[in-house]
Amino acid sequence: MVINMSKKKAVVSLGHSALGYTTEAQRDAVQVTAKALADLIEEDYQLVITHSNGPQVSMIHKAMTELRRIYIDYTPAPMCVCSAMSQGYVGYDIQNTLRSELLSRGISKPVSTILTQVTVDPYDEAFYEPTKVIGRYMSREDAETEIKKGNYVREDQGRGFRRVVAAPKPIDIVEIDAIRALADADQVVIACGGGGIPVIEQQHILKGASAVIEKDAVAARLAADLACDELIILTDVEYVYRDFGTEGQTPIASMTVREAKTAMAQEQFSEGAMLPKIEAAISFLEKIPAGRVLITCQNRVKDAVKGKTGTVITA
Amino acid sequence: MVINMSKKKAVVSLGHSALGYTTEAQRDAVQVTAKALADLIEEDYQLVITHSNGPQVSMIHKAMTELRRIYIDYTPAPMCVCSAMSQGYVGYDIQNTLRSELLSRGISKPVSTILTQVTVDPYDEAFYEPTKVIGRYMSREDAETEIKKGNYVREDQGRGFRRVVAAPKPIDIVEIDAIRALADADQVVIACGGGGIPVIEQQHILKGASAVIEKDAVAARLAADLACDELIILTDVEYVYRDFGTEGQTPIASMTVREAKTAMAQEQFSEGAMLPKIEAAISFLEKIPAGRVLITCQNRVKDAVKGKTGTVITA
Repeated sequence: MVINMSKKKAVVSLGHSALGYTTEAQRDAVQVTAKALADLIEEDYQLVITHSNGPQVSMIHKAMTELRRIYIDYTPAPMCVCSAMSQGYVGYDIQNTLRSELLSRGISKPVSTILTQVTVDPYDEAFYEPTKVIGRYMSREDAETEIKKGNYVREDQGRGFRRVVAAPKPIDIVEIDAIRALADADQVVIACGGGGIPVIEQQHILKGASAVIEKDAVAARLAADLACDELIILTDVEYVYRDFGTEGQTPIASMTVREAKTAMAQEQFSEGAMLPKIEAAISFLEKIPAGRVLITCQNRVKDAVKGKTGTVITA
Repeated sequence: MVINMSKKKAVVSLGHSALGYTTEAQRDAVQVTAKALADLIEEDYQLVITHSNGPQVSMIHKAMTELRRIYIDYTPAPMCVCSAMSQGYVGYDIQNTLRSELLSRGISKPVSTILTQVTVDPYDEAFYEPTKVIGRYMSREDAETEIKKGNYVREDQGRGFRRVVAAPKPIDIVEIDAIRALADADQVVIACGGGGIPVIEQQHILKGASAVIEKDAVAARLAADLACDELIILTDVEYVYRDFGTEGQTPIASMTVREAKTAMAQEQFSEGAMLPKIEAAISFLEKIPAGRVLITCQNRVKDAVKGKTGTVITA
């Protein structure tokens, strides 16, 4: 086992734009993503990569629902199974493409994906008020069937009904030992895809939960568990902004946890967009006070790690 | 890193019956499979697990085809993507269930899945005569569209057309370093599911191939790469038989590679059933002459590793 102490250990969290919405679009998007990741590796980062899976798990969930409709001998695939499939699908594209990109730069480094489960608390208040919309539009009839099964649905004016699931907080990353063993061996690991497969621990059994875990929350947990130097969150914007979306929006080059909390109290960060990233940053820095969080976009990350752009958050 | 030298390192190859054909059936089947695997771990085996994925990849391929039919904004999912999804799906069920089974026996041991690609030779003669039937029945019209795309189809009398793909030999296990790192750390690894995602190496790029690799051939390669003591192939029958299926069939308790080759020449082993297992056994033993191959069924494996049943093949 070779551990290069001069390397910076980081978790990189990839957003939707790193991946694309269909299998073909993803193959193209991942080519660009792989370049950004390879840039970081060339800058002496030792990477553990995590990614969103919203469009992917939604595509798979739709496909499995259609399958069930046409071939009645198939049983419905629960969300946890769709999530596992999406980790396979996205992980494959990233590991395949990143390996090639590294080899083309003369870097021979193993890249692999660990299928990951993440435990959630069955009493997490998110279960009482599910908010994450998933899957296809349903008729009123199908929606009523879902409700009878104990699932939640929400009506989207004039367009039909869709399932909503809970977004509980992550408790434990079940496969953390495997992820750590590979990271310690200086290999690139893709893990906790889509926030991990959500499971509820009952005695020794892990039951799949109808839920989606916020991927940045899991990225923070992963970075803390691995005692990373940095958490790098890649998104659509170059900076975190103050007064985002207004004429007077101003980029934030750096802030402390305390400043971030003040800005949060002022509702500077929008729910479902920048807010979960800031919350993830705070959660990581509260566990690893010597750590650093960088929020920027993929095509600027090479400059951002050199301090030329992006938002840096520290304790 | 703790390596227990008294442990026997083994690759276990699981067949169709270890898994089941639908998501629900798989969940049930894997409960039984996990007990057999936990038995081996209690017998001081250090396991790397591989499995078939025929019904699973076929289910996913059907689902993705139906999706494309209904939502035309989705692009078709190539076989390699379906194969990656199936590794996610099956790996999740095995790692989840085996972890629980071990914990219920007081064994706390990491179990995880590595998504695996396996390279094949684009000039492998299997590509000139594809033999593996996959996916759903098609109309003549759809079959003609497939042929125009360069795919092979085969007519099944009166029932329609189905795609056939090549079954080339495995060359290299791309993620072998990750698998080895976990096995060396005494963790249980699930890898090379369904024979691995078949890829063709072109320069530094690994392109997904329209192919299925025989899972026992990959199991043999994996066991040789890891210098395993044993290759354990679990199937539907307790023994390899001479004159199988006839009134006079006799179980084979043990044979050498030479005896296996003689029996092969006498066409004792049926193609697509026992033959690939015997070929895998020979291939492993020619690379690891001190090794041992055990072929038996899942519910007899505990006795089989104690020499009470099953067929043992040695160099």
